Amino acid sequence: MSLPATVVTPPLVDQVDIVIPTIRSLDFLEQWRPFFQPYHLIIIQDGDPSIKIRVPEGYNYELYNRNDIERILGSKSCCVSFKDGACRSFGFLVSKKKYIFTIDDDCFVAKDPSGQEINALAQHIRNLVTPSTPFFFNTLYDPYREGADFVRGYPFSLREGVTTAISHGLWLNVPDYDAPTQLVKPRERNIRYVDAVMTIPKGTLFPMCAMNLAFDRELIGPAMYFGLMGDGQPIGRYDDMWAGWCAKVTCDHLGLGVKTGLPYLSHSKASNPFVNLRKEYKGLFWQEDLIPFFLNVTLPKECTTAQKCYIELSKLVKEKLVAIDPYFEKLSDAMVTWIDAWNELNPSTDGTPTGKVQPSKPK
Amino acid sequence: MSLPATVVTPPLVDQVDIVIPTIRSLDFLEQWRPFFQPYHLIIIQDGDPSIKIRVPEGYNYELYNRNDIERILGSKSCCVSFKDGACRSFGFLVSKKKYIFTIDDDCFVAKDPSGQEINALAQHIRNLVTPSTPFFFNTLYDPYREGADFVRGYPFSLREGVTTAISHGLWLNVPDYDAPTQLVKPRERNIRYVDAVMTIPKGTLFPMCAMNLAFDRELIGPAMYFGLMGDGQPIGRYDDMWAGWCAKVTCDHLGLGVKTGLPYLSHSKASNPFVNLRKEYKGLFWQEDLIPFFLNVTLPKECTTAQKCYIELSKLVKEKLVAIDPYFEKLSDAMVTWIDAWNELNPSTDGTPTGKVQPSKPK
Repeated sequence: MSLPATVVTPPLVDQVDIVIPTIRSLDFLEQWRPFFQPYHLIIIQDGDPSIKIRVPEGYNYELYNRNDIERILGSKSCCVSFKDGACRSFGFLVSKKKYIFTIDDDCFVAKDPSGQEINALAQHIRNLVTPSTPFFFNTLYDPYREGADFVRGYPFSLREGVTTAISHGLWLNVPDYDAPTQLVKPRERNIRYVDAVMTIPKGTLFPMCAMNLAFDRELIGPAMYFGLMGDGQPIGRYDDMWAGWCAKVTCDHLGLGVKTGLPYLSHSKASNPFVNLRKEYKGLFWQEDLIPFFLNVTLPKECTTAQKCYIELSKLVKEKLVAIDPYFEKLSDAMVTWIDAWNELNPSTDGTPTGKVQPSKPK
Repeated sequence: MSLPATVVTPPLVDQVDIVIPTIRSLDFLEQWRPFFQPYHLIIIQDGDPSIKIRVPEGYNYELYNRNDIERILGSKSCCVSFKDGACRSFGFLVSKKKYIFTIDDDCFVAKDPSGQEINALAQHIRNLVTPSTPFFFNTLYDPYREGADFVRGYPFSLREGVTTAISHGLWLNVPDYDAPTQLVKPRERNIRYVDAVMTIPKGTLFPMCAMNLAFDRELIGPAMYFGLMGDGQPIGRYDDMWAGWCAKVTCDHLGLGVKTGLPYLSHSKASNPFVNLRKEYKGLFWQEDLIPFFLNVTLPKECTTAQKCYIELSKLVKEKLVAIDPYFEKLSDAMVTWIDAWNELNPSTDGTPTGKVQPSKPK
């Protein structure tokens, strides 16, 4: 059932936006052209709006700089981070598509062990349109993949799976390490291609990285807020982690699935570990309290949409996390502003997904 | 840090017993000789004790048939299954070693994608002597493996990991399917080599297969009881599943880790699906109630050893599962008998492990 690495017909071309946060150049799109050109891009220009961004010819795109964000969101633009990759959230907000694929501009096409170029976007779509299995672990990994199935002892009542909301891809070459690990292992490169996709079990948190990430915007978009990071904020490099924790507890509550594994892309360069340490050092402390907080979150039954879950989460953040740092009060308010902006720009989606994909049956 | 596929010095040769349940022949040991011969074997001869089992020359082994089991355990021998692979539990009971590796006699040496023969036992030992990470998911899989580490966003307080108690290996060629799946997919073969070891998160159950399994006998042996299966029992082919559910909730309670993934071996032949269906059909129903039971088990704080956990589990089985079938009353009693037998044969182990391996630190 798996898609070939290179597909002739690009899958779901009218239902996917590619969201890219960027500072100067989009040259990396030349390499991705065979896979990305059929799709629509949403580019969020971070930093100085007067800088001219070059988008390779032939691409169909919208580009938003800070002035656009302020024009469109007005006073609500304060919830969109500035001078930080977290600005990508704005793209999720203005998209009108069912699926989002977001990628960093230092990520290139990787090759699988046979030497074939990996169509990361096609694999993400495959991950998203096939079910997840969060309630029981399948030892042969993705049971919906060709040549695999549920093993002996897997309860039959759980084999239909649940709808997948998030597909988290991985990185060959430069791994996604924190600053301390970068400093300790400056030369470590990831060369191991693990040929697997798996569901992250219900109740388990994971570090969600936004370098290579896709999700169902209708189902989980409102929980994919990348927080307040970068300029004027005491923290950076925790934008995707924050979104990941919030989105995972929301998926667990709503009975949606989160997958990780394939596809790989090639991450070209490690960012400066000293700069990273400055950005993330508060996060290194704070996460020690944030993880237990998220592990213990329980959302009320009435929260039947990602929006409702997210508003509830914002209350819990204010109630429980402000003791860590006053920053969390500001963040809690920004979470509410984000949902206000979401509802304003997406009036038709009251959280009841319109084009919900039915999980395909296990073979 | 990973061991090469073929090790010159066999690891922990004095601390491992290989336990094999068998009916007629151990010819498969000829193929495993380079890897197994340095180790001590415990062979449990199932079925007719008068049949002569041929063990290839050069192996150091103990062989127990049904007469031996009855002589050694007396009235307690009723807890050891007859005419079923579940008889292997007896080997765990009489072993005096820290680690057990158990394998079925239709499992052969597999090759990795480079064509090298896989030393399954060495990989299991490596899995067992390095820590597990059950409290948070690491997206680059085993963080203690060479070339890997914890990714950005992984809490530092959890990077020491916990002691590993179980290493569950996988199978190339014939996958471990239940009878319905065997019937539907008679020709399916597993040809995908997934180069990963991972920890099964706390709170998540998995289908533990005994074809290729290793564990720390001191830490989790008492919970590795394969139940009442086969001759005179209403169920078969759920022996390892039962042990897996009991052992996983015990590990979760005691803060021990369970890994799955590498090593692979090659499973040579699918057993008869019609025979299997007859053996397992009650299990197909029952597991629908057993999984929720095990997911909801909470053990009291006072249960600080596998023995104590297992006695507590036996009480819960009697209390909650007898409504499914009277069989579970008999099983509950057998669980108690098993622990009695364990304590009798292992008087020095009151559940306080003597030679506890300290988890090695993350690199």
